[in-house]
Amino acid sequence: MAKQIFVTGHKNPDTDSICSSIAFAKLQQLKGVDAVAVRAGDINKETAYALDYFHVEAQPLVKDFYVKVGEAVRKDVEALPYSASLKDAAKWFADHDSDVAPVAENGNFAGVLYKSSLAGEFVKTVLGEELSTVKSLVQDAATIFSTSDNGHDVPAEGRYVVVDDGKYVGMVCADCVAAVEKRKVMLVDHNEKKQIIDGIDEAEIISVVDHHRIGGTLATEGPIFILFQPVGCTATIVTSLYEQANIAIPKEIAGLLLSAVISDTVLFRSPTCTQQDRETAEKLAAIAGVDLQAYGMDMLKAGANVSDLTPDQIAQNDMKEFSDGSVTFTISQVQVMDTTDLLEQKQVLLNALEKMRSAKNYAASFLMITSIIDESTNLIFAGNMDAVVGKAFAKDVLDKEVYLPGVMSRKKQIVPQILAALK
Amino acid sequence: MAKQIFVTGHKNPDTDSICSSIAFAKLQQLKGVDAVAVRAGDINKETAYALDYFHVEAQPLVKDFYVKVGEAVRKDVEALPYSASLKDAAKWFADHDSDVAPVAENGNFAGVLYKSSLAGEFVKTVLGEELSTVKSLVQDAATIFSTSDNGHDVPAEGRYVVVDDGKYVGMVCADCVAAVEKRKVMLVDHNEKKQIIDGIDEAEIISVVDHHRIGGTLATEGPIFILFQPVGCTATIVTSLYEQANIAIPKEIAGLLLSAVISDTVLFRSPTCTQQDRETAEKLAAIAGVDLQAYGMDMLKAGANVSDLTPDQIAQNDMKEFSDGSVTFTISQVQVMDTTDLLEQKQVLLNALEKMRSAKNYAASFLMITSIIDESTNLIFAGNMDAVVGKAFAKDVLDKEVYLPGVMSRKKQIVPQILAALK
Repeated sequence: MAKQIFVTGHKNPDTDSICSSIAFAKLQQLKGVDAVAVRAGDINKETAYALDYFHVEAQPLVKDFYVKVGEAVRKDVEALPYSASLKDAAKWFADHDSDVAPVAENGNFAGVLYKSSLAGEFVKTVLGEELSTVKSLVQDAATIFSTSDNGHDVPAEGRYVVVDDGKYVGMVCADCVAAVEKRKVMLVDHNEKKQIIDGIDEAEIISVVDHHRIGGTLATEGPIFILFQPVGCTATIVTSLYEQANIAIPKEIAGLLLSAVISDTVLFRSPTCTQQDRETAEKLAAIAGVDLQAYGMDMLKAGANVSDLTPDQIAQNDMKEFSDGSVTFTISQVQVMDTTDLLEQKQVLLNALEKMRSAKNYAASFLMITSIIDESTNLIFAGNMDAVVGKAFAKDVLDKEVYLPGVMSRKKQIVPQILAALK
Repeated sequence: MAKQIFVTGHKNPDTDSICSSIAFAKLQQLKGVDAVAVRAGDINKETAYALDYFHVEAQPLVKDFYVKVGEAVRKDVEALPYSASLKDAAKWFADHDSDVAPVAENGNFAGVLYKSSLAGEFVKTVLGEELSTVKSLVQDAATIFSTSDNGHDVPAEGRYVVVDDGKYVGMVCADCVAAVEKRKVMLVDHNEKKQIIDGIDEAEIISVVDHHRIGGTLATEGPIFILFQPVGCTATIVTSLYEQANIAIPKEIAGLLLSAVISDTVLFRSPTCTQQDRETAEKLAAIAGVDLQAYGMDMLKAGANVSDLTPDQIAQNDMKEFSDGSVTFTISQVQVMDTTDLLEQKQVLLNALEKMRSAKNYAASFLMITSIIDESTNLIFAGNMDAVVGKAFAKDVLDKEVYLPGVMSRKKQIVPQILAALK
């Protein structure tokens, strides 16, 4: 049977990544594909509001796509009990291509029997001496894996026991890991490697739906389905895919897609918003049965409340990594109704940005403090990029800050400008 | 006014690249976009048959996308005639930010007047001596550009004259070149940098429609339209874009799209062929008014005739470059009704492959000799890749050749296998 397909948005997911992955996975399911939405990180307050409103549970968190020992373990390799005879042990080694045999009593892992230990028994047999018991020959295993360990840590040579909570599970080897069918992954709302869940190289990307720039890190061995559109929200594209497939959008899915459009376009205020986003949102609101403006403001307000976030959390809010190949930087964003409180603690936020920047050795770490009401952004940053920022926005940088009226979109009004200024 | 948009397929274009770019440009035009199809190389015999059959002219050849001096030249910079007074010359330098002035008689370029030459005239003025004439001060220009030169060759400092066929055109500078609006390019049927027309870095990719693997070299600063589908032919995707836009496909365009599907799927024999390709071809044949099978065989036969190609031409037929990041190789393909003649001259073809491989320092150069009738491929190659080829196809390589029954598709049955074996 083919493996279940994982549908995921980017690390540090926003409402679009969470809701579009749920909606895209649902579309696959309605087409008969065995797909499941997963998420790459915690749910933010805005997204939580949307999920709660439409009574949808958040999808499971997936920390990485590395092949796990649990996927490669051979559970049919039976362990020797203490009571096994040495003849049983000899038979075990004859049957298995392994120099080490697991020993377990009632499922509890007891240690291993090395094939080399049988050398002395041969001598005893020749001399007619009394043979040892399996129990007396058991030793501690030099290396033990648990099912949650990463498969790529299994050494190339040899067989190893797998033990969970003291219980013997089976044996694993590097070849067993290599034989595991690749996990299939569908990406929505991102394509740059730095934003994909870790371990994607041990999986296979089978489709990408996105509305961001293509970052030059997406490569596959064979052809796959890829759809990028320069619209305000991935959810707008996912909605069009339901329409193309002629599949009715379930009410709660329409609600989630609507929430994503409202979020990414800041209720149509962002310059990334297109006519298609607006029309899509109106259709979705009708299916979801909500008043677009009223629901939209309530959801944005829920997300705009940063009063209970720590400076570290604010500095990393909705953070994404970018790279022009040599220089790597991050851009976080908070969207609030009023920027006064945040700007009053600017120095504290700069310290949090700098702590993060230096810890990961980024060239710079930016924070967009965006006012939904004023439709403007105070961009502050840690790192030696004053000249780049000045060039990017044709503004003088004052105390690690530029004020950018009309700027709300990282994707359209910040990333291209910084990348161009870096050239 | 916005610049005209160029729509192009890959270097060494096949029928899909030529026909899909014409059809996609036409779709843009029907949507009111000022787009024009161009081609990256010569038309092969199969494509020529299709264009001729449907009475469509081949699009113009574009050799590169480099910004040309002709796009940056300032034609309003008037030249000084011989008859100009030194007062006129002084006024010219006062008006222009340049240390060199063009001199021309009746449009014919005569040389340049250096501002420094006027130093002596000042001395003469003070001493009350007779002044020189412009004519007597003219010198040969150290550097002259023509409109067809590449703009990036203009030095960063200074102003330079532009002369075509002895006629003065205007002046150019590096800043003038940098100010040229970027050419906008839509790619169809390819995405890997090595297959794109040279100089794309001086242009802007604004959309990509393709059915190949994504090669990891596609990057943009902002979001653009990208559609990849794992179908047999780009023309199948272009057809679906007409349908999505609800725009009727013109008869001759349907004929070209049909030709592309027949070509890329080898009349539905290739394993890359999907149900969607078949259904698309049937719809297109109805619009184009041709018998699918009869037209298809005639077109394939026209392309399969390699009798008048030289060994060098065969070795480079439909050639594409591939790279896994460190190793670069090429794969060419000829599709014939009968492989006997080609296999009889295998050594000659291997020599041609080796000549090409070593000239460009490729790791290997492959040639797929594919039988349309037998639905199989003899893969021959130059370069030290016997082990890789053996691993890729689980076959023993005999005298730089493997026979691959059932293999017709470079994209699906050759490229992924070689890339995987290189890992």
